[in-house]
Amino acid sequence: MAVYTEVSDAELEAFLAEYDIGEPDSFKGVAEGVENSNYFLTTTKGQFFLTLYEKRVDPKDLPFFLGLMDHLAARDISCPRPIHGRDGQALRSLAGKPAAITTFLHGLWPRRVLARHCGPVGEALAALHLAGRDFKMNRSNALSVRGWRPLLDASGRHLDPPLREELQAELETLEKSWPADLPVGVIHADLFNDNVLFLNEKLSGLIDFYFACNDAFAYDVAICLNAWCFEPDSSFNATKARALLQAYEKVRPLQPTERAVLPLLARGAAFRFLLTRLYDWVHTPSGALVKRKDPQEYLAKLRFHRGIASMADYGL
Amino acid sequence: MAVYTEVSDAELEAFLAEYDIGEPDSFKGVAEGVENSNYFLTTTKGQFFLTLYEKRVDPKDLPFFLGLMDHLAARDISCPRPIHGRDGQALRSLAGKPAAITTFLHGLWPRRVLARHCGPVGEALAALHLAGRDFKMNRSNALSVRGWRPLLDASGRHLDPPLREELQAELETLEKSWPADLPVGVIHADLFNDNVLFLNEKLSGLIDFYFACNDAFAYDVAICLNAWCFEPDSSFNATKARALLQAYEKVRPLQPTERAVLPLLARGAAFRFLLTRLYDWVHTPSGALVKRKDPQEYLAKLRFHRGIASMADYGL
Repeated sequence: MAVYTEVSDAELEAFLAEYDIGEPDSFKGVAEGVENSNYFLTTTKGQFFLTLYEKRVDPKDLPFFLGLMDHLAARDISCPRPIHGRDGQALRSLAGKPAAITTFLHGLWPRRVLARHCGPVGEALAALHLAGRDFKMNRSNALSVRGWRPLLDASGRHLDPPLREELQAELETLEKSWPADLPVGVIHADLFNDNVLFLNEKLSGLIDFYFACNDAFAYDVAICLNAWCFEPDSSFNATKARALLQAYEKVRPLQPTERAVLPLLARGAAFRFLLTRLYDWVHTPSGALVKRKDPQEYLAKLRFHRGIASMADYGL
Repeated sequence: MAVYTEVSDAELEAFLAEYDIGEPDSFKGVAEGVENSNYFLTTTKGQFFLTLYEKRVDPKDLPFFLGLMDHLAARDISCPRPIHGRDGQALRSLAGKPAAITTFLHGLWPRRVLARHCGPVGEALAALHLAGRDFKMNRSNALSVRGWRPLLDASGRHLDPPLREELQAELETLEKSWPADLPVGVIHADLFNDNVLFLNEKLSGLIDFYFACNDAFAYDVAICLNAWCFEPDSSFNATKARALLQAYEKVRPLQPTERAVLPLLARGAAFRFLLTRLYDWVHTPSGALVKRKDPQEYLAKLRFHRGIASMADYGL
């Protein structure tokens, strides 16, 4: 939640002159999004979203992210559509940072997830997986199983020894048994409730594609199970999981191989978010105003999935 | 630059049900404003600004601030106009905080102040002073001369002794010679460049009335001299000052008593912002992400004004 880069009047004017979107009539930094600087831009022609990509985004990944949003939007996935300049380019530079303008999506993300949100999320996730199948670019998932050991190493020494041992054992299990032969394609990889907009009780858009990558579709489902189907006290809500999975399967049925490993993938997904939260937790000064997300939540989820033997145990 | 208070879906829904402004279709935290939580709200009926008042704003001052904006807007000052609910109230409670909705003003605040901005600012300031004359409520200026000694006491021990002595001597001079018989009324008291919006090179609005109070009009002019008429290297720009003062005087001519003390008021205004910046500087952890404004800038301005004998020395 921050604006890291200030944009001067002259820079903004020169930047917008490359587009055909009218004259700016307001330009406000948005507090959401911890990775980039985001501005809400209104012009004489409409509302837009302007993003300056900060250091956590690798500039060489930006053509993938922007190309993917173009690709999905052209296939009726409601997601931010990059605005192309007069030269055809969607990606340019502003205040020394890579920057892009997208359409502004209407809707509110649900601050509190209810069961009625989970079906639409499952359906939209499956539609995203299908729509991405013919996308030509590739981006490997740096935060999949091969990326976890360095992350654990970077945080492990700050942990109590019993927890460190638990996580090391978990990592060994995951590395040993992680499936390699699942259906793969473009996944969102971060479809949390603050990345899904609802309007009049209907899903109105998916946002924040800056973790999107090529990986197993079922892993994306596992991420959503973690993100949408637990209560604030970390107890699992089978009603939500059922709604999410059934709606997903109406659009893209899971294959038997995917169903068989879903508990393992859910462990892996919980482990992945536990690791990045742990990393941020131990590397963010406690006085800083950036909101640190509590790693404990994902430790509880990880332990829950570890007790699950098959998809049926999720209450399905 | 922050959103301190998260608003739940149910809270927002119940809150908006008190108004006749349509259904929400987006709700985004705004990164500007360090004092309160600000949200950009669009509904089926338009764009609005929703503010939750945080701890630095005294709830008992809110009727003054909201009443003033109502009063000024009714007199054609372009400022946020509080939206009144069906019960007639503009101030209510959201997520446990006092909260209000206002109209959303279009325009961009100039990131870099140019001479062409200064005339419109002087003119708008004078119009504000005139429009506020028949406003019935009162709020004394807690950050005027009587409030400075406690602020200096709270930061003084962190300062190098020569600087501390300089500021103590300054305070004694200001306390001894501060004028008591100037024309007074409602002043904005914080009309910095991020509180003035421009659209198509014309001033389109004044925002952030949360320091407004009753004090000498000329003191407000002195605050603007400090805020608008120095270059980034802290050198005084007489062209900007001339533009600001001449435009002010076209709407509300300064009286001889006001002109005589303007250099002293400008010293006081520089001292006031130096003190609050010093206070924030020494009381904000250096690791925090809140942007601390450099007190040095206002020390340079204070020293400049100390060398000024009369208004003519400003280059007028």
